[in-house]
Amino acid sequence: MKKYEYSIGIDFGTNSARAVVVDLKDGKEISNSISNYPSGIDGVILDEKSFHLARQNPGDYIICLEDVIRKLILKAKKYKEFSIDKIVGIGIDATGSTPIPVDKRLVPLSFYEEFKDNKNAMAWLWKDHTSSDEAEEITSLAREIRPQYLSKIGGVYSSEWFFSKILHLSRVDKKVFKKAASFIELTDYIPSILTGKENPEEVKRNICTAGHKAMYSEEWGGLPDDEFLRKLSPDFINLRRKLYYKAYPAGTTAGYLIKEWAKRLGLPEGIPVSVGALDAHIGAVGAGIKENKLVKVIGTSACDMIIAPKDKNLPDIPGICGIVPDSIVPGYVGIEAGQSAVGDIFYWFVKRFMPETKESFKYFTKKAEKLKPGESGLLALDWHNGNRSILVDQKLTGLILGFTLNTRPEEVYRSLIEATGFGERIIIERLEEYGVKVEEIIATGGIPEKNPLLMQIYSDITGRELKIAASSQTCAVGAAMFGAVASEYFQNVEEAQERICKFKEISYKPNLQNKKIYDKIYYLYKDVYNAFGTKNYKESLFHVMKQLLEIKRDVKK
Amino acid sequence: MKKYEYSIGIDFGTNSARAVVVDLKDGKEISNSISNYPSGIDGVILDEKSFHLARQNPGDYIICLEDVIRKLILKAKKYKEFSIDKIVGIGIDATGSTPIPVDKRLVPLSFYEEFKDNKNAMAWLWKDHTSSDEAEEITSLAREIRPQYLSKIGGVYSSEWFFSKILHLSRVDKKVFKKAASFIELTDYIPSILTGKENPEEVKRNICTAGHKAMYSEEWGGLPDDEFLRKLSPDFINLRRKLYYKAYPAGTTAGYLIKEWAKRLGLPEGIPVSVGALDAHIGAVGAGIKENKLVKVIGTSACDMIIAPKDKNLPDIPGICGIVPDSIVPGYVGIEAGQSAVGDIFYWFVKRFMPETKESFKYFTKKAEKLKPGESGLLALDWHNGNRSILVDQKLTGLILGFTLNTRPEEVYRSLIEATGFGERIIIERLEEYGVKVEEIIATGGIPEKNPLLMQIYSDITGRELKIAASSQTCAVGAAMFGAVASEYFQNVEEAQERICKFKEISYKPNLQNKKIYDKIYYLYKDVYNAFGTKNYKESLFHVMKQLLEIKRDVKK
Repeated sequence: MKKYEYSIGIDFGTNSARAVVVDLKDGKEISNSISNYPSGIDGVILDEKSFHLARQNPGDYIICLEDVIRKLILKAKKYKEFSIDKIVGIGIDATGSTPIPVDKRLVPLSFYEEFKDNKNAMAWLWKDHTSSDEAEEITSLAREIRPQYLSKIGGVYSSEWFFSKILHLSRVDKKVFKKAASFIELTDYIPSILTGKENPEEVKRNICTAGHKAMYSEEWGGLPDDEFLRKLSPDFINLRRKLYYKAYPAGTTAGYLIKEWAKRLGLPEGIPVSVGALDAHIGAVGAGIKENKLVKVIGTSACDMIIAPKDKNLPDIPGICGIVPDSIVPGYVGIEAGQSAVGDIFYWFVKRFMPETKESFKYFTKKAEKLKPGESGLLALDWHNGNRSILVDQKLTGLILGFTLNTRPEEVYRSLIEATGFGERIIIERLEEYGVKVEEIIATGGIPEKNPLLMQIYSDITGRELKIAASSQTCAVGAAMFGAVASEYFQNVEEAQERICKFKEISYKPNLQNKKIYDKIYYLYKDVYNAFGTKNYKESLFHVMKQLLEIKRDVKK
Repeated sequence: MKKYEYSIGIDFGTNSARAVVVDLKDGKEISNSISNYPSGIDGVILDEKSFHLARQNPGDYIICLEDVIRKLILKAKKYKEFSIDKIVGIGIDATGSTPIPVDKRLVPLSFYEEFKDNKNAMAWLWKDHTSSDEAEEITSLAREIRPQYLSKIGGVYSSEWFFSKILHLSRVDKKVFKKAASFIELTDYIPSILTGKENPEEVKRNICTAGHKAMYSEEWGGLPDDEFLRKLSPDFINLRRKLYYKAYPAGTTAGYLIKEWAKRLGLPEGIPVSVGALDAHIGAVGAGIKENKLVKVIGTSACDMIIAPKDKNLPDIPGICGIVPDSIVPGYVGIEAGQSAVGDIFYWFVKRFMPETKESFKYFTKKAEKLKPGESGLLALDWHNGNRSILVDQKLTGLILGFTLNTRPEEVYRSLIEATGFGERIIIERLEEYGVKVEEIIATGGIPEKNPLLMQIYSDITGRELKIAASSQTCAVGAAMFGAVASEYFQNVEEAQERICKFKEISYKPNLQNKKIYDKIYYLYKDVYNAFGTKNYKESLFHVMKQLLEIKRDVKK
C-alpha cells in the first residue's frame, strides 16, 4: 500500500458541481460536497425568445470549483486518517458538448466587459438546441463528402454537439466568433485552469469529448479536415488551427495543480490532475463498466455505455451515437448509445396527468406493481423526446395504443416504463448484432434505487440481470479513479475498478414467465416502432391491437 | 285544424321511461315525466359472474308505463286547454334489440313463479354481451350460405342483436327457451299490451327493430329462412313460425287503447296506438331527419341516421350497420351508422386521469377551447370501445400519438374530441361514396348543448353546418309524432315534422381556416386508421409523426 491514499473527483453537472474524496484502499467515499451554480435558473441561462437556448456562466464554474473543494476538504478533515498531503490526484468530469469561447490566454470571452451580458459568449450548455439547422447542414455535408465522419456517431450529427454550436455562433454573433481564439470544452477547461495552462495550444484536450462530440478520430487524423470545415462555412477557414490536432484519454496527466489554485482550494501544490472526460463516460467507469457489462445511467434520459477491446476490429454500428477508442477505458473502444427520455416520460405523465395526487410516483408504482405483464393491453413508444438510439431521429413523438374505456392511469404508467424497457432491448439487440455481447447491466443514475418496479421490468424485458452500482456518485468517484490513475497510484483503470467499484446487495433477475409475455409484446413494439420510425417498412399493423387483446385475455385467465 | 290536438310519446330508455304530451298545432311539449325502472342497478340487472350480462325485469316496464303516464297527465292537466279527450294518439319507442321471452298469451316468462329469479327469462337488454360467440357463429354461417343477410347490416352480426341472444338462450337455458312461445322486442311489447293483443301472432312487429336487429328484409321474404336457422341450431327448427312473417313501419296503427289499460293510465279507451320503433330512429324523426340531413345522436356513443328515397335503388354500403326500408321514415330507406364510444371516451379520460380536478369537464373544455387545430401535434384513434362504423370491429383499441414532454392534458382531451370528429367524417365520406349526400348535420343527445367546443370541431372537421334539435326529448317527441300519424291526424311523417321539429338558434358553421388544417390531420388519421384497422393496408407510417410536427410548427408561427 502506498503512502498517499486519497483521490479527489469533481463532477461538473448541469446544475451544480459535486466532489468526493475517495479512500483508495477500499473505495470508501470519506467526504462529498455540492455547490450549485449561482446564475440563471438552477444554473442554466435561458432566453425568453428562444426556448431552445441553454447557456451557462463560465464564472459559475470557477466559483463552484473553489466552493465545492473547500467544503469537501472541510468535511474530509473530520475523518481522522485524512490529511490533504495524502491526496494523490484530482480527476474531473463534466457535461458536454459544452464549449466555451475563450481568448488566446484561455480567458472565457464572457469575462470581458464588452461581452458580459452576451449569452453567445458564455458556455453553450450540452442541452442548448439553437443549432438544429446547423446540425442538419453538417450531417448532410458529411453524408455527401465525408461519410466516415458519421460512421462512428450513429449517422447523424446532433444540434447538441460542438461544431453545430460553433457554426451557429459564427452566424448569429460574428463579433464573439471572431474574438474567440479557441473553443474549449468544459471537460478540458477545468483541468486547464487547475494546471495553469496559458494558451489553447497547451491544453490537453480529452478524446472522450472530442470523439463523441466533435468527429475526432485518429482514423482520419483528428478533427474534420480543413476542406470540410471550409465547405461548411467560409468563416471556418482558420478554425482547425484554433482547435487541436491530438486528444488524450482520461487518466493521462494533464498537468499539476498550480500554486494559485492550490491556494484557492486549500490543497498542496503539485497534485497530478487527470485529463477530463464526459460525465456519463467517467460515471460508467465509476459504476464498474467492463467488457460484456453494459452500464446504463437511468435518469431523466438514459445513456448506455459498454466497451470492447480495441484489437477486436469492431465494425461501425448504425444508430449507436458514439464509437470512440479510449473514450471510456483506455485500451478499449468506448461505445455509447442512449434514450432521449426515460424518467422525463414518467415525470411528464405523473405530474401532468395526476398533479393533485400526493406522492404520485409512489402511488402509481405501488398500483402498477400489482399488474401483470400484458394485463393492460397497452403498448407505448418511448419517443416523447425523439429517439436517440437506434433511429437517431428527433422528429418522432410518443405513442400509446391499446386504450379501452377501462384503462387506468397506473396501466398507462406501467406501459411507459415498459416502453423504455423495450427501447433498451432494441439497443442491446443492435449491439449484439454487431458483435458486442451484453451479458449483464449495471444500472446507475437517479432511478434504479428509487424504482424497483422499473428494474424488474427491464430485467424481464431484456432477459438479463441488472445490478446497481453501490455509489450514488459514480461520476465523481470515476473522476477520482482517473485522478489516481493519472498519478500512477493505480497502473490502469481496471486495477482501480477492482479496488473501488462495488454493487448494491439487491440485484434483479429475469422472471421467465414474465419474459415470455414481454417477448410477445416486444415483437409488437418492434412492428409499431418500425412502422413509424423507419422509412421503408411497409407492413400491416392489423394484428397489433388484436394480439395485445389476446395476450391480455390469456394473462387474465 | 282538427278538434283533437295532443299526442303522447313514450320512450323506454335504458334506465327509465320518459313521456311527453305534444301540442300538435305547434310542437310545444306541454308536459313531460320520467319514471325510473325499480329493479337492479339503475334498472339494469347485472351478474357477478359475467360482466357481459345486462337484463331487465319486464315487470318494470309495466310499473313505469303506468307511473310515467299518470305523472304526465297530472302535469298536463295544469295546462288549461288540455283535456284527456283531446289526445289523438300514442306512440312508443324503446331500446333494442331487447327481446323478451313470452308465453303463448304474451305473458313474459319471468312473471311465472318458476322463472321469477331466472335472469334468462327476463328482457335481454340491448347492451347484454353474453352472446358474442353466437354472434360470430351467425356471421360466419351467413357469410357462407346467406351473404345477403349481412349486406344490410354492415357485414357483421352483433352480439347485441336478436338471434345472437336467442341462440345463446337456447344453449344456456333450455327450459326457458322451450317454454317461450315467442320472443318479442320491447318496441313491440308495449304497443301489444296497450292494444290488448292476446297472442304472439296478433302482434304487429315493427320493421325498424326487425330490419336493423333481426336480418328481416322483404328482399328475402322476411326473417332468415328455416334452413339457415336449422343450420344455426337444431333447436331452431320451429323458431321461425314462433316469430313473424311480416313487419310494419312505425306510424301504422297497432291497435287501440283497451279498457283495462285506459283505466290504469287514466286515459279514454280507444286511442290509436302506433307500431313502435327503436329509440334512436324515432329520435331521428323527432330531431327532423330528412333526405341529405343526417341526424347524429351524440351521447356516450353516437348514432348516425339518414334517409334516402326507396326508389333510388340504394346499393349496399359496406360498414354501415343498417340499411332498412321504412325503418325511420316510411317511404324511405333508413340508414344507420354508429360510433361505439364518444362521450364515454371523454368521460374515461377526464374522470380517470383528472379525478381530483373539480368540474373537470368545464375546466378542460375551457382550456382546450384556447388551442388551435394542429397545435398539440396529437392524433388519436377513437377506438376505445372498438369501431362500429365503418370497420365493424370490436377488437380494436384506442390510440394516441404525437406526445412530447410538453403535452398537456387539455391537448389530449381535445385530440380525443377531434378523433371522434374524424371518425364521423369517415362515416360521412362512406355514405357519400355510395350516393347518400350529407349536406347538414342535426345533432341531438346529451352532448351537443353541453359542449360547443365539440360542435365547432365537428363542423370544422366535416365542413358542414351543425344544428341542434330544439327538443331535449327527441325520442319521446318523435314517438308522439308517430302516434299522431297512426291516428291520421297527420297524413305522414313529413307533415308532422314540418309542424313539430324546431332547431336551437345557435348553429355551428365551419371555420375554413381550421378546416384546412383538419383536412391535413384527417389524411394522417386515415393512414393510421387504415394501418391498424384494415387487413391489407401495407403502407409506411414514417410520415405521420413528422407531418404532425410540421403542422404544429406552422400553426404556432
